Amino acid sequence: MKNALGSLLAVGLLAVAARAQTVEQWGLFEIGLKGPTNGNPFVDVALSGVFRQGTNVVSVAGFYDGNGDYRIRFMPPQPGLWRYETRSNGAELTGQTGAFTAVAPSAGNRGPVRVANRFHFAYADGTPFRQIGTTCYAWTHQTDELEEQTLKTLATAPFNKLRMCVFPKYYEFNRGEPGRYPFERTATNRWDFTRFNPLFFQHLEKRIGQLGDLGIEADLILFHPYDGGHWGFDGMDAAADDRYLRYVAARLSACRNVWWSLANEWDLMKQKSDGDWDRFFQIIQASDPYAHLRSIHNFNGKGGRLYDHTKPWVTHISIQSSDIVPAQVRDKFRKPVIYDECQYEGNIANDWGNITAREMVHRFWLATIGGAYAGHGETYYHPQDILWWSKGGVLHGESPARLAFLRKILADAPQEGLEPLDRSTCGRAGEYYLSYLGNHQPAKRKFKLPVGARFTVEIIDTWEMSIVSLPGTVEGQCQIDLPGKPGLAIRLRRAP
Amino acid sequence: MKNALGSLLAVGLLAVAARAQTVEQWGLFEIGLKGPTNGNPFVDVALSGVFRQGTNVVSVAGFYDGNGDYRIRFMPPQPGLWRYETRSNGAELTGQTGAFTAVAPSAGNRGPVRVANRFHFAYADGTPFRQIGTTCYAWTHQTDELEEQTLKTLATAPFNKLRMCVFPKYYEFNRGEPGRYPFERTATNRWDFTRFNPLFFQHLEKRIGQLGDLGIEADLILFHPYDGGHWGFDGMDAAADDRYLRYVAARLSACRNVWWSLANEWDLMKQKSDGDWDRFFQIIQASDPYAHLRSIHNFNGKGGRLYDHTKPWVTHISIQSSDIVPAQVRDKFRKPVIYDECQYEGNIANDWGNITAREMVHRFWLATIGGAYAGHGETYYHPQDILWWSKGGVLHGESPARLAFLRKILADAPQEGLEPLDRSTCGRAGEYYLSYLGNHQPAKRKFKLPVGARFTVEIIDTWEMSIVSLPGTVEGQCQIDLPGKPGLAIRLRRAP
Repeated sequence: MKNALGSLLAVGLLAVAARAQTVEQWGLFEIGLKGPTNGNPFVDVALSGVFRQGTNVVSVAGFYDGNGDYRIRFMPPQPGLWRYETRSNGAELTGQTGAFTAVAPSAGNRGPVRVANRFHFAYADGTPFRQIGTTCYAWTHQTDELEEQTLKTLATAPFNKLRMCVFPKYYEFNRGEPGRYPFERTATNRWDFTRFNPLFFQHLEKRIGQLGDLGIEADLILFHPYDGGHWGFDGMDAAADDRYLRYVAARLSACRNVWWSLANEWDLMKQKSDGDWDRFFQIIQASDPYAHLRSIHNFNGKGGRLYDHTKPWVTHISIQSSDIVPAQVRDKFRKPVIYDECQYEGNIANDWGNITAREMVHRFWLATIGGAYAGHGETYYHPQDILWWSKGGVLHGESPARLAFLRKILADAPQEGLEPLDRSTCGRAGEYYLSYLGNHQPAKRKFKLPVGARFTVEIIDTWEMSIVSLPGTVEGQCQIDLPGKPGLAIRLRRAP
Repeated sequence: MKNALGSLLAVGLLAVAARAQTVEQWGLFEIGLKGPTNGNPFVDVALSGVFRQGTNVVSVAGFYDGNGDYRIRFMPPQPGLWRYETRSNGAELTGQTGAFTAVAPSAGNRGPVRVANRFHFAYADGTPFRQIGTTCYAWTHQTDELEEQTLKTLATAPFNKLRMCVFPKYYEFNRGEPGRYPFERTATNRWDFTRFNPLFFQHLEKRIGQLGDLGIEADLILFHPYDGGHWGFDGMDAAADDRYLRYVAARLSACRNVWWSLANEWDLMKQKSDGDWDRFFQIIQASDPYAHLRSIHNFNGKGGRLYDHTKPWVTHISIQSSDIVPAQVRDKFRKPVIYDECQYEGNIANDWGNITAREMVHRFWLATIGGAYAGHGETYYHPQDILWWSKGGVLHGESPARLAFLRKILADAPQEGLEPLDRSTCGRAGEYYLSYLGNHQPAKRKFKLPVGARFTVEIIDTWEMSIVSLPGTVEGQCQIDLPGKPGLAIRLRRAP
């Protein structure tokens, strides 16, 4: 069985899944039920499922998927036999029972990503997750052809997380209408925020599932300000906002590669109060029994501000800033830090979208040595306005190859994550040191290593993507000769 | 007559100067007197001169120069006839009177540099002073041959200000003994802080004068921590500190190209309290009737801190930082800002001394668009440890040529100084805009120019040192095509 929901839908195996007697741990088990179509099932029908394994009881909300189809999705957090029972105010929907066995996850299924070692991330199976993010805000609102091209690009790109919006985007370079809308229209051609469009969400799920198949986490942006009244999805009332969040959580919480990003540039959404955002977080927290990662992303311009990240429902910092100074943010909030927007490689007129590839790579390395993570984006002018940062497509820039190189280096780093040790060095004291020299070009570098241990030395060229191993080992107070050029890193590893 | 003291001494014309009936405005008028040699003239003899022109009365301290020579130096701040009278507790020294005429300054003599337009500098004659600094901390403590080589280098270098220490320096790359010491030794071979060594100060003055002849301001560092007890000039008692400051002020205040830098890395001098520094400032302020510029320079490492720059005796901010964010400093202190140490072009192991030439140039431009100024230094390994930053010699780097290019651009800028207008643009609204794009590489740039005016456009490559004038003019909301590479600047000037 495929391990991702999107693929299930894609190949029409959903019915099989619902009847399956086994599902992988962290896979998606779905109960499909037929129920009432009269009235407004989205608001009239309450549906949930209770899943039990011994004393472990997980209650999850179901949702209406159109055409009389109701579904309850569950991601078994533990292997073994699970029994369930449905509850509803609809007679056909309530009291359904069953059982299935969660089996060992297949290769590539490591479970959802969690916070690990305070400032880092790991999959539920303990495998470290070294975030190398990218951004395609509106990629699921494009033509099928373009969306498939994006997936093809991602299949060989270095990224293991992608930021994407649920709602379509109306913004510079993004003036087209999407193929699907999240809500139905009323007779007077206004949005009926009480009626979701299942086709929209099925499509979204399919794409999220396909990302999962590629090993990419979907950092799902629930609200954003790039609407400005064009559709009005940024200006719904509180009841509509809350209903939307619960519906999304019911549909998607069981997808193991979902992260919740409450908003992009939340502080530009003047329609919402700080209290609204607190409530949104709490709704997502209450509606997602698997506690997927939760964050909220700020604007970086005049008047921009961070949400109060000390609040307990914020799992990590998803910051926008061109100044990569992780220590400040880490020390203040004591949570993992992702510079999800540190400007994009590109050549557009806007300064947030025209840094050089070298600068993009530099910022990833600055995040790394600061014990944090970064996000990529690409914004080169395109004759059809297909900019990767929003629509996906193909990559044109020079940074992704270097980010793949960085990803390999991170994969070889200590399990616990790289902690900042000094201004230019991260690692694990006594074991592993990774210094990044950036715009510095020393002809030699001095190190004070712990006595009683010997270390191998490698000179890494972060731009040329080369690693040169020096002969022998070093120890104690030592000095390493360098080629004296910018963009170098030095890796010291304790010799066996 | 030569216009700088150093040259006077160098060519042996001091006696002529003392008897001259005319001296240039902002030139140096010196009264030479013979007096007692018994006891300790440095502490026993009080000497001053009162200079009058109408109601304008300037009182200046004299000083003992060894061999029975006493001197009183005066820099006429206004042209016209000046009368003077000496005062002393020594019979031969007191009651001497005379007169001289201050004539119009010769070419190149624009008077001392002052704060102008709050955040900028100008010579006393109103000519803007666009600071392009460099650093040769210990250049006057080297061999004559090396010092002459430094002057030769400076003659064609772009710098119009140089940071230099009075006291010799004991530090990495600087372990030699100077040819002269500021104090005499006691019979037990300790320093006699009550007896200055006139030869030391004559030499210093000569070099300062030679800088003046080259149009270079001498930013004279009065204390520094790079002694660490080797000589003990960083650990004198309060009486010796104060005597030293008054002596230096009496000797050097009349040199128009002197700036007072109370210390380098003041916050590393744990022997001094904040109150000491307040007192030092006040002594310099009281002893220098011409109110030369006064600053104090901080350390940039852990525990480093700025002196309270709101204090009235601080004329400008002389900051050390690798982060060039002038807005913060300008807004806080409302005084001119010089990033006197923003790290150095070089390749030594220390990170403060190994940035690339591109990064050095980048930081100067960041300072410029932020309405501030920057300082250069160069620290390439040298077989004889002759690093420009400390000993002078010759320049090896690639940044000075680009700083000369920047200096020319600043010389063509509006008289009032360049004020920050947005994150990447400085200038004078409606008249002149200079945008620097740094690590950004837009293919085009949008501008909103005031209506009713047309502007010429030039594309400046800050590294290649080229200026390309675009044909025609632009106005209002406009868009300028760019080559899409890093390191560009755009200059828009109102067309006549």
